[in-house]
Amino acid sequence: MSEVLLERAHAEELDAADPLAGFRARFALEDPSLLYLNGNSLGALPHATRRRVEQVLREEWGTALARSWDHWVDLPGRAGNLVGELTGAAPGQVVVTDNTTVNLYKLVSAALDARPGRHVIVTDRDNFPSDRYVMEGIATQRGLELRMLDTDINQGLQPDQVRVAVDEDTAVVSLSHVAYRSGALADLPAITGIAHEAGALMLWDLCHSAGAVPVGLDSCDVDLAVGCTYKYLNSGPGAPAFLYVSSRLQQALRQPIWGWFSQRDQFAMGPGYDPAPGIAKFMTGTPTIIGTAAVEESVRLLLEAGIGPMRAKSVQLTSYLIELADAWLMPLGCELATPRDPGRRGGHVTFRHPQAEQIVAQLAAGGVITDYRTPERFRFGASPLYTRFTDLWTAVGSARDIIESKL
Amino acid sequence: MSEVLLERAHAEELDAADPLAGFRARFALEDPSLLYLNGNSLGALPHATRRRVEQVLREEWGTALARSWDHWVDLPGRAGNLVGELTGAAPGQVVVTDNTTVNLYKLVSAALDARPGRHVIVTDRDNFPSDRYVMEGIATQRGLELRMLDTDINQGLQPDQVRVAVDEDTAVVSLSHVAYRSGALADLPAITGIAHEAGALMLWDLCHSAGAVPVGLDSCDVDLAVGCTYKYLNSGPGAPAFLYVSSRLQQALRQPIWGWFSQRDQFAMGPGYDPAPGIAKFMTGTPTIIGTAAVEESVRLLLEAGIGPMRAKSVQLTSYLIELADAWLMPLGCELATPRDPGRRGGHVTFRHPQAEQIVAQLAAGGVITDYRTPERFRFGASPLYTRFTDLWTAVGSARDIIESKL
Repeated sequence: MSEVLLERAHAEELDAADPLAGFRARFALEDPSLLYLNGNSLGALPHATRRRVEQVLREEWGTALARSWDHWVDLPGRAGNLVGELTGAAPGQVVVTDNTTVNLYKLVSAALDARPGRHVIVTDRDNFPSDRYVMEGIATQRGLELRMLDTDINQGLQPDQVRVAVDEDTAVVSLSHVAYRSGALADLPAITGIAHEAGALMLWDLCHSAGAVPVGLDSCDVDLAVGCTYKYLNSGPGAPAFLYVSSRLQQALRQPIWGWFSQRDQFAMGPGYDPAPGIAKFMTGTPTIIGTAAVEESVRLLLEAGIGPMRAKSVQLTSYLIELADAWLMPLGCELATPRDPGRRGGHVTFRHPQAEQIVAQLAAGGVITDYRTPERFRFGASPLYTRFTDLWTAVGSARDIIESKL
Repeated sequence: MSEVLLERAHAEELDAADPLAGFRARFALEDPSLLYLNGNSLGALPHATRRRVEQVLREEWGTALARSWDHWVDLPGRAGNLVGELTGAAPGQVVVTDNTTVNLYKLVSAALDARPGRHVIVTDRDNFPSDRYVMEGIATQRGLELRMLDTDINQGLQPDQVRVAVDEDTAVVSLSHVAYRSGALADLPAITGIAHEAGALMLWDLCHSAGAVPVGLDSCDVDLAVGCTYKYLNSGPGAPAFLYVSSRLQQALRQPIWGWFSQRDQFAMGPGYDPAPGIAKFMTGTPTIIGTAAVEESVRLLLEAGIGPMRAKSVQLTSYLIELADAWLMPLGCELATPRDPGRRGGHVTFRHPQAEQIVAQLAAGGVITDYRTPERFRFGASPLYTRFTDLWTAVGSARDIIESKL
């Protein structure tokens, strides 16, 4: 990168040319002393979401009270359809419900039941801990094999690794689309095809990809997916997760937690369980209404921007971040722990440094919020709706100054 | 009831003498045209809860962002301890997490694993649908017997019915403390003792009792409990549920959904699952923070009033309601579908009438919110923190007028 491109003026030019720049004002990020690069962990608060939650509180709950159930009851499906629109799923295949771990439990269980006689679940050692734990639990309880791929923790999973691991014993392959640590983007179409060739079902965790990269659930023939809504979907801490079950499979699959929100004629309160015909079959008990309303509102904002423009800006942001780091951080002992090819990474960039934890703490002390992940890694998250190029310029410069002088 | 006690003036006297009358102003119930008797379904909005949620939105999420996880991470346990205080459990045994159905799934599964060789789950036919469905699912998947007691749908479950159904094959008995339809209050100490005599674990659903009647989880030697927070706990539509696991059992029991919030050293993100030592072991994935904060704040309000005074007022309210109904509704063909003994009922009263559904609709048209339940029943919920005796006087009078003239 030439010296002139390392100037703040260049970052300002990039901001000025950014077609999504106007979206930043839609978020509660007014504090000028704060530079937030952790939207890959917890997305910022959209003003519209705050207003919507306050309206649900004051009007729908406070004033209309239980009468609001008339329109709340369909909210998980309505919000799910918007998440589907964002991730490439036609209506009726996504529902907002429970948390990611519970959704994984339901869908891995459903997939295993749909592949009787097959005793292997395939995942990778670098998958998000909760994903690994929940699958370990299912495998232990059912006496199945959890086959763990050895992934490169910087470069992520390769399709060939999946190809050699998946066989006629494999019931389900469950992987993360974007790796939480490295930000590596898996080749979703290729890996889905490999799972299908072996007759296995493919379940993607979209926690770190929904809202950052296009997914193409329907076009890639994905079977099952789960994801959280509190990262790029900006729906708030612990907001409810979503799950996708392809319409091809909704009739055949059955999830294990039979609750009244998955019952065909819920308010008949009938004697026996009779699962709802559509995606509601994959719900459990009463869903959080405040949280689901937040998802609906926040995802609307992303759809207004469009996943195409968001991905284009995300690639530009992470590429610029890496260029700055090449000039300022790599000479100081940092290593890139994210794929350099923009087609192979999601919305965050990770660096390795022996004092990563202290770097994150020092950055935070100066108002630059990033985060630390074992081993020896710090992550910079660039959320396309509110991260500015000047934010990255300041943040990487701060990291450089900290490593040079303050550690 | 003498004529003078049927006058509105008497209801006004009861309101004037009510030591909890001041709590009504703590709720968003300002609409004078609304008379809300459905708090047994969805509790009203406390002003403090609205303020707290708005503060979580604006400050904790909006401004402090991911840094708030430092204090959010313990919130489910803190809120759980307050629910424990309300239901008679010492700290460290209750956590706010997931919904009631998911919690039932976890605890019934854990109980079955703790009683290997026993193949029976005991519940009753009038248990809440989601409870029955989730147990039906578990029994089907594990090839166990779900033994259904035939309960009187007006008078509720009797200890002797449980005694004859529970035997050396019974792993777990799971019942509702207060029946959703009739409001009948089960004899929790006696039934818990009967389950224990047979060597079974006892799991109570407190959805319709928590915040309305004292429970005594520890003093009655209860093993397991679950409950929702959106009825008498006033925590909002679909607010997260709670679960109780006696400290006697926390070491031995293991729940099936192994998520990162149940992991011992969660942020080490280690390779294998190692369950947390305490009640957190029974959590799953990321909990809803907004919902859990609402629970913490709403339960504080109940603790300020105290379960003793709340129960005393609740008994007084439901007794008055039945007296009015004896005078005004029973002569018109209504039947009491709730135990007449106040020691055998919870916080709501149910009436049977062939046109119950129309009565509920007509009442709602006049601003009196109650609810309908199959078959042919309407429920009046009296929440001790905000229901006035004059509300009951007006509501029963409206029901009388509707039945007399408008049906």
